[in-house]
Amino acid sequence: MKPVVVIHGGAGAVSRGTASPALEHEYHAALQRILTSAQAVLAQGGSALDAVSVAVTGLEDCPYFNAGHGAVLTSDATHELDAAIMDGATLRCGSIANVHHVRNPVLLARMVMERSRHVFFVGEGAERFARANGVTLVERDYFTTPARLEQLRRAQHEAADGADSDGQGQPILAGRPTRPADSNEPIDPDRKFGTVGAVALDADGNLAAATSTGGITNKQVGRVGDAPVIGAGTYANNATCAVSCTGTGEMYIRMVAAYDVAARMQYAGATLAQAADAVMFEALPSVGGKGGLIAVDQHGNIALPFNTDRMYRGYARLGEHPVTEIYPT
Amino acid sequence: MKPVVVIHGGAGAVSRGTASPALEHEYHAALQRILTSAQAVLAQGGSALDAVSVAVTGLEDCPYFNAGHGAVLTSDATHELDAAIMDGATLRCGSIANVHHVRNPVLLARMVMERSRHVFFVGEGAERFARANGVTLVERDYFTTPARLEQLRRAQHEAADGADSDGQGQPILAGRPTRPADSNEPIDPDRKFGTVGAVALDADGNLAAATSTGGITNKQVGRVGDAPVIGAGTYANNATCAVSCTGTGEMYIRMVAAYDVAARMQYAGATLAQAADAVMFEALPSVGGKGGLIAVDQHGNIALPFNTDRMYRGYARLGEHPVTEIYPT
Repeated sequence: MKPVVVIHGGAGAVSRGTASPALEHEYHAALQRILTSAQAVLAQGGSALDAVSVAVTGLEDCPYFNAGHGAVLTSDATHELDAAIMDGATLRCGSIANVHHVRNPVLLARMVMERSRHVFFVGEGAERFARANGVTLVERDYFTTPARLEQLRRAQHEAADGADSDGQGQPILAGRPTRPADSNEPIDPDRKFGTVGAVALDADGNLAAATSTGGITNKQVGRVGDAPVIGAGTYANNATCAVSCTGTGEMYIRMVAAYDVAARMQYAGATLAQAADAVMFEALPSVGGKGGLIAVDQHGNIALPFNTDRMYRGYARLGEHPVTEIYPT
Repeated sequence: MKPVVVIHGGAGAVSRGTASPALEHEYHAALQRILTSAQAVLAQGGSALDAVSVAVTGLEDCPYFNAGHGAVLTSDATHELDAAIMDGATLRCGSIANVHHVRNPVLLARMVMERSRHVFFVGEGAERFARANGVTLVERDYFTTPARLEQLRRAQHEAADGADSDGQGQPILAGRPTRPADSNEPIDPDRKFGTVGAVALDADGNLAAATSTGGITNKQVGRVGDAPVIGAGTYANNATCAVSCTGTGEMYIRMVAAYDVAARMQYAGATLAQAADAVMFEALPSVGGKGGLIAVDQHGNIALPFNTDRMYRGYARLGEHPVTEIYPT
């Protein structure tokens, strides 16, 4: 059993014009740099919680990924950031949703976990908690990048309408889309989602998971996805595994995806790989869920399944060179 | 297999001065009335979704229960309402949190489920969705009752301080409180929580669950509990069961309590009663979780376990007189 940290920077298909070889090189370099910083935490005897905090902070600070600086924009051209963290040793957790000024949402989630009797704060109350606890705040435009503004402009141009109600309803079954796939769908699950996350195992055998996101481009104001929902996008328990998800968040919520990986291990005796694959390739597709997840168990086994074209991802075991990937291997 | 609806109106110990025999009679009468209205839905061939919607709407409208009219107050003396609903036939769901003007939060949750591609809205965005979809809105003082104002006054008088940060952290293990049990704790898990909810099985064999709450008295602004978190406070799946929880919401989130009942049935082969009891009397107590849950499976088996002094609860099978209880039987 060797300490390990695993990260993802979102799954899906890259938006048009953003998949050049030069940019892909940049993504690999960013993932390598972030893995190296989290690996250093583990090498110094740091905890899994510290490793995932450092990794997700790095992903939030990097403009290439949809979290923190570089987060996507809502239909109002605002940012609404969500994050969660969970400690597999104690099952303590912290979640925040719909914050606008918190530079590193994952650090606010961690502060909720460590300093509040509550575990989940949203909106102005979450920002009030941040101010009271000295969390770094920034102006709203800190998060905005030219690339995200351009994505929003394209999404709104393509959208059939920009009304508050999308009026579509949730698809009931996979393969039965509620409108033609080539229509002017405002939320294209193949292209416009993304999240960042990390899971880790430390030298003490403790697991942790963290996830952070700006949500989906052109999302309606107030929408919350799976990232801050414990059990859906984020879960950790030393007895089973630590999981962080990325994808069509609504489907991950419906399937309680992250906890389902753990439950299959705990109650059905599945291995980490079996459980992760069952959730990714059976459960989630049954409701049309697309994306990926990363997971680690107490033995250091890791799983990084995804059912989309690509997932930005990587892992670093103690004393080994970090491995990064974008496409299926 | 006979259609059945099960409801709860919160678990815990009743606050001082509210447990008179006359008031208990009122509670029984309210539960009877609400069960009768939901039973009528099932008798007319209505769906489990309609039955839980009618039941929870009735509980929200009744000032005795902590949801809708009669919801508890935050530390700012405001109301922040949360609700969720889930359809066991399709795994579609809708959740809303932190709304201030929605007369019946459960109906907004249902509208999110039926009319949006998103499943979870919070705060102003949720209210905007409500306005766009014609949901009934009310002034904030609609929710306030003299009894709840008095509860808040007492809670704030007892609290060590009214600061934004409670500074306590989540208890890691049951039985190791982070401060003495007799201290001036602002959130007394034995007394100040409450939620309403319903689960049902209809004549077509479909299951549904719904939960609604005002949260906990004197809660910090922005706090969200388990009620709107799919998998924690609310879950439904025809393959296993429908569940609605009430209690110390933070612990239900940490344990993914509602989905854990279903997972134990699906993966470990537990019966509904075995699964519900394991969650209520083993899993939740392991982190100090207190409260109760109601559950129904596709065969019409029901479970209503709780680990507190009392839980307002009842059930009504088609063609039978509704049964209501407050204390352990």
